[in-house]
Amino acid sequence: MILHSLSIPIIQAPMAGGVSTPRLASAVSSAGGLGFLAGGYKTADAMREEIMAIRKMTDAPFGVNIFVPSGEEVDFEAVSRYRELLEVEARRLGVKLGEPKADDDDWNAKIEVLLEQRVPVVSFTFGCPSPEIIAELKDCGSCVVVTVTTPQEAIMAKQAGADALCVQGHEAGGHRATFHNHTSAHEDLSLLVLLRLVSEVVDLPLIAAGGIMHGRDVAAVLTAGASAAQLGTAFLRCPESGAHPVHKAALIDPSFKSTAVTRAFTGRPARGLVNRFLNEYDAVAPAAYPHVHHITKDLRKASGESGDPSSMSLWAGQGYQLSKEMPAAELVHLLMEQARQALEDVTRKLRVQI
Amino acid sequence: MILHSLSIPIIQAPMAGGVSTPRLASAVSSAGGLGFLAGGYKTADAMREEIMAIRKMTDAPFGVNIFVPSGEEVDFEAVSRYRELLEVEARRLGVKLGEPKADDDDWNAKIEVLLEQRVPVVSFTFGCPSPEIIAELKDCGSCVVVTVTTPQEAIMAKQAGADALCVQGHEAGGHRATFHNHTSAHEDLSLLVLLRLVSEVVDLPLIAAGGIMHGRDVAAVLTAGASAAQLGTAFLRCPESGAHPVHKAALIDPSFKSTAVTRAFTGRPARGLVNRFLNEYDAVAPAAYPHVHHITKDLRKASGESGDPSSMSLWAGQGYQLSKEMPAAELVHLLMEQARQALEDVTRKLRVQI
Repeated sequence: MILHSLSIPIIQAPMAGGVSTPRLASAVSSAGGLGFLAGGYKTADAMREEIMAIRKMTDAPFGVNIFVPSGEEVDFEAVSRYRELLEVEARRLGVKLGEPKADDDDWNAKIEVLLEQRVPVVSFTFGCPSPEIIAELKDCGSCVVVTVTTPQEAIMAKQAGADALCVQGHEAGGHRATFHNHTSAHEDLSLLVLLRLVSEVVDLPLIAAGGIMHGRDVAAVLTAGASAAQLGTAFLRCPESGAHPVHKAALIDPSFKSTAVTRAFTGRPARGLVNRFLNEYDAVAPAAYPHVHHITKDLRKASGESGDPSSMSLWAGQGYQLSKEMPAAELVHLLMEQARQALEDVTRKLRVQI
Repeated sequence: MILHSLSIPIIQAPMAGGVSTPRLASAVSSAGGLGFLAGGYKTADAMREEIMAIRKMTDAPFGVNIFVPSGEEVDFEAVSRYRELLEVEARRLGVKLGEPKADDDDWNAKIEVLLEQRVPVVSFTFGCPSPEIIAELKDCGSCVVVTVTTPQEAIMAKQAGADALCVQGHEAGGHRATFHNHTSAHEDLSLLVLLRLVSEVVDLPLIAAGGIMHGRDVAAVLTAGASAAQLGTAFLRCPESGAHPVHKAALIDPSFKSTAVTRAFTGRPARGLVNRFLNEYDAVAPAAYPHVHHITKDLRKASGESGDPSSMSLWAGQGYQLSKEMPAAELVHLLMEQARQALEDVTRKLRVQI
């Protein structure tokens, strides 16, 4: 199990949309952790190029994450109404809204590339692939990880043959990895609770994700039983991260006060900094993914290009204020040092106490 | 600092409404943890009687929690509309709805009792008392704890003179301890993140609360930097707990699927099992505390008396499925044993790994 052979049990979360560059992933992997490429939102060919790029930068194992297409039904009238509402935003920024098309994010071709490239770790978001696909990937030597947000999803992933689970708490930045888009608003399990409930029902290695920003948090989730800690927001401001400069700046801009989970940007629940767009459209955004993503894509891009964070999707986990501008390898070592210190402290404290 | 001299860093959370009996609190305190009486929803005299009762049962230190009155403005029309909506529920159960009165939960008299009784630990919920009251309690030898849900509240509590903070994550069962009722829905910081953010801005001992059900969780929050772990839901099914039998049964009834935070029962956000009443009234319940509490009180009581959980407030944290029917002292020892094991496991694992 590759998760147990990492010299540092720290994983850099896959962040689609240009954040998880081969440079970032290779820096983390070379440092002894596990870097991730984000296959989402790009073609299979582009994904292959990134895999080949990272292999030129490091011999260390790395991961690739892709999105599982849902095929869920969508209320097209609601999507049209939402698109009309957003016209005023498009006019303001001088762009055209995208068409609300469905797509499978090049699923079949990406599976082919992953099989061909024999990627060390393959993780999935937004669902669970078929047992056949999981078995094929395992036959090619890949460790298959499915991202889950509830104990029920964990059971399904285990039954489909996953090698390990990425357990994503409600505090995580970016998209909630829920298997379905229509989950009730009640599914808001935080990381520690989710780790506990999942470990009660499956006996797979668990990767803990959500709100982890400091080595003490890494130590805490390992203590809670996770095999590794996955951090996304913590790496956003690294020089190797491809996050937009406006996004990076927003993370330490005190005019942003909190994060929230919203469908406003993509039609699927995702956590980001609360900005004007989120405040204005959260309540009326339909559950329609990737339709809403396609509608708002150019809008968000134009907002970033004009240096204005008010209409961007500023994905961020709850602890975003603590993200550091620091080379990724240094951050990995700092986190591990803090984690070791935390464990020493608590062990000493309990020994004295009892 | 009393928190550092507990032989077991486990605190039984104060649970108002009859759950936190002197018997439960004394069992936890006698076992080496810290038991809590819940002063909320009762008269100052009744609170004094409980303090005198626990002192007959144990010499160990214990805590008393009270609610801070808010004096926040309330939309009386919205309250009236909500009361009218609930008439159908009252008729169904053959009770009269209560009048939506404001009250301060006997605040001044309770402070007098706490000063007179020199209670070892006094904790506050729903706000921060004045620096004068905190100073008086400290002069009487009490350790003063203020419950917080955001870093901002933590700073205010520190400035007012609190000795320690109870840091309540979003996963916690029962009332959210927010200083104000009108906080935006965006404030949903989970325990690990909140611990981290609070420890960045204040240097007080922190009590971690929310979703802790297992000794591994206890070890995790201690590793994250907490001085003690506070558990409520974990103690609900103990024989010493005064929770209604219908409430106890609901916690392990698989027909309940999840928890949610709602104002439907009391007018203040609180987390409980999702039942019919919560589903039906969550969206229309006004932010009016304790007005809504008084309106629904007899209704909830009647629901319990008729053995029907559908209109009760079934307070529960996110990990409620793991609550155990077990004497409180045994539970405290089990949690501590699990915590020690978790720390041994992780220390061994990291030593091998690195």
